[in-house]
Amino acid sequence: MLKPLGDRVILEVQEEEEQTVGGIVLASNAKEKPQTGKVVAVGAGRVLDNGEKIVPEVKVDDLVVYDKYAGTEVSNDGEKYLVVRANDIIAVVE
Amino acid sequence: MLKPLGDRVILEVQEEEEQTVGGIVLASNAKEKPQTGKVVAVGAGRVLDNGEKIVPEVKVDDLVVYDKYAGTEVSNDGEKYLVVRANDIIAVVE
Amino acid sequence: MLKPLGDRVILEVQEEEEQTVGGIVLASNAKEKPQTGKVVAVGAGRVLDNGEKIVPEVKVDDLVVYDKYAGTEVSNDGEKYLVVRANDIIAVVE
Amino acid sequence: MLKPLGDRVILEVQEEEEQTVGGIVLASNAKEKPQTGKVVAVGAGRVLDNGEKIVPEVKVDDLVVYDKYAGTEVSNDGEKYLVVRANDIIAVVE
Amino acid sequence: MLKPLGDRVILEVQEEEEQTVGGIVLASNAKEKPQTGKVVAVGAGRVLDNGEKIVPEVKVDDLVVYDKYAGTEVSNDGEKYLVVRANDIIAVVE
Amino acid sequence: MLKPLGDRVILEVQEEEEQTVGGIVLASNAKEKPQTGKVVAVGAGRVLDNGEKIVPEVKVDDLVVYDKYAGTEVSNDGEKYLVVRANDIIAVVE
Amino acid sequence: MLKPLGDRVILEVQEEEEQTVGGIVLASNAKEKPQTGKVVAVGAGRVLDNGEKIVPEVKVDDLVVYDKYAGTEVSNDGEKYLVVRANDIIAVVE
Repeated sequence: MLKPLGDRVILEVQEEEEQTVGGIVLASNAKEKPQTGKVVAVGAGRVLDNGEKIVPEVKVDDLVVYDKYAGTEVSNDGEKYLVVRANDIIAVVE
Repeated sequence: MLKPLGDRVILEVQEEEEQTVGGIVLASNAKEKPQTGKVVAVGAGRVLDNGEKIVPEVKVDDLVVYDKYAGTEVSNDGEKYLVVRANDIIAVVE
Repeated sequence: MLKPLGDRVILEVQEEEEQTVGGIVLASNAKEKPQTGKVVAVGAGRVLDNGEKIVPEVKVDDLVVYDKYAGTEVSNDGEKYLVVRANDIIAVVE
Repeated sequence: MLKPLGDRVILEVQEEEEQTVGGIVLASNAKEKPQTGKVVAVGAGRVLDNGEKIVPEVKVDDLVVYDKYAGTEVSNDGEKYLVVRANDIIAVVE
Repeated sequence: MLKPLGDRVILEVQEEEEQTVGGIVLASNAKEKPQTGKVVAVGAGRVLDNGEKIVPEVKVDDLVVYDKYAGTEVSNDGEKYLVVRANDIIAVVE
Repeated sequence: MLKPLGDRVILEVQEEEEQTVGGIVLASNAKEKPQTGKVVAVGAGRVLDNGEKIVPEVKVDDLVVYDKYAGTEVSNDGEKYLVVRANDIIAVVE
Repeated sequence: MLKPLGDRVILEVQEEEEQTVGGIVLASNAKEKPQTGKVVAVGAGRVLDNGEKIVPEVKVDDLVVYDKYAGTEVSNDGEKYLVVRANDIIAVVE
């Protein structure tokens, strides 16, 4: 298992074909193409200049939309994961 | 439904034809072409370096002008949404 | 009517022909060509890192000189407006 | 009259021929060619992140050396002025 | 032995062939290709603007995934080490 | 006389021939070629974000080594001066 | 003698031939080629935004690894020195 550091979040990537997750179709935009993923693990957060730690706003099992070009791909036992910064997560699908 | 994270705001995009919203015609400018949208959801806000959270100045149902090239398009059940940063919203139409 | 957000200021643009406002002729410079406008609306101001809000130094009806390439054009009922950042306003004509 | 905003300072530009102001000849340098001007008006200063206001170190009638490519030219009744940031003023001639 | 300074961490690099560490296969991504290493030494941490020291989240013997192009290679007695910033470590393999 | 503003320092430039000041020969480097000068005047210092003023570490008559491409040349009565930022001074020759 | 300013550190450069200092051979990397030097003098440190001074982590006579392209070369009585920022020192050889 991977434990993300800082404000990183590990996502289970949704397949290209499944772009209509929860009835939501994602249209590509000029600069950033959003995608959907399920949160698998959440880092402890980033540290502010006053020493306070800001925990990411998402939690395990959240379905999230993130910027396509964000993050680093990692795969484990045939399952693909994506490690993104909490700030690259655009929205939570509710 | 989408819940925007950080200082993001979700907008219902106004059609290109409807550029005279509330009697206001938007002229395109050199660097940034503003557009109009209705606020659908507002994020919790961005965190300052002193740990304080700054809530976006807009609220749901506000009609706003935003920078054209700002944000990420998302569509749900045939309705197009745009996720922008609170800072990319120029003005509220009153 | 438009309510500007953050440290934005809405200006009523002065016509190109009227560049001698208040007896002041504006000469163009290499990097930035200043222009004159009348303040129509003022945003609530920008938030400092300590949470304090800094109100723009201009008020409604002020005649101001601003950087030419600053801001976003918006027009309402045939009247052109320019939305600029408070920091792009160079001086107030007194 | 022009009232400069923020940390801006309005200068009365010295003529190219008069580059030996106060016995000081200014040699041009690779990146920035300094010039001399007389302070006509001083802005209220810039605001620090702790909310404190820092007043420019110059006062009206000071003769100053500034970076040549700094600022925005403005002319009033045949007199040329230059609006520069306080930080673009290199030194005061005493 | 090398004692890393600031928020630097010294890693024992994993061989190219051994990219399936702990059952985890690392797929290369467009911008950054992650790799795996074992933590050999950890710096005292970086200093925040309030003077507080932030200790890296990893400890000696941790197996970590880091950004491929991060860091500086150093070799000692035939063993290769990589010195990276704590922030270039993506995740800990558990 | 020139009074430098902010964290600026005025130096009396050492001639190219005299590059062995105090027995120290300066070898040129790839990015920045250091040079030697004598401190003639020191600015009041730069202001930190907490409002505190940081006085430059050098004083009048110090012999200093500075980055060659730093600063702005000014000459007075045949004597050449260089105005540099305190941060561009590398070391004091003792 | 040279007294380094700010967070600068003066190093006695190790010869190219002696790259196996303390049994440590330094392999060159894509972006930055590390090298070894002995600390000759240490600056008083850099000043944080809260006014606190952060002293460099190294002391005189430390053997250190630094980024090759960092710093400015200075030579005194035939001995070559390198002035680097404390932050460009990667590790101390122990």
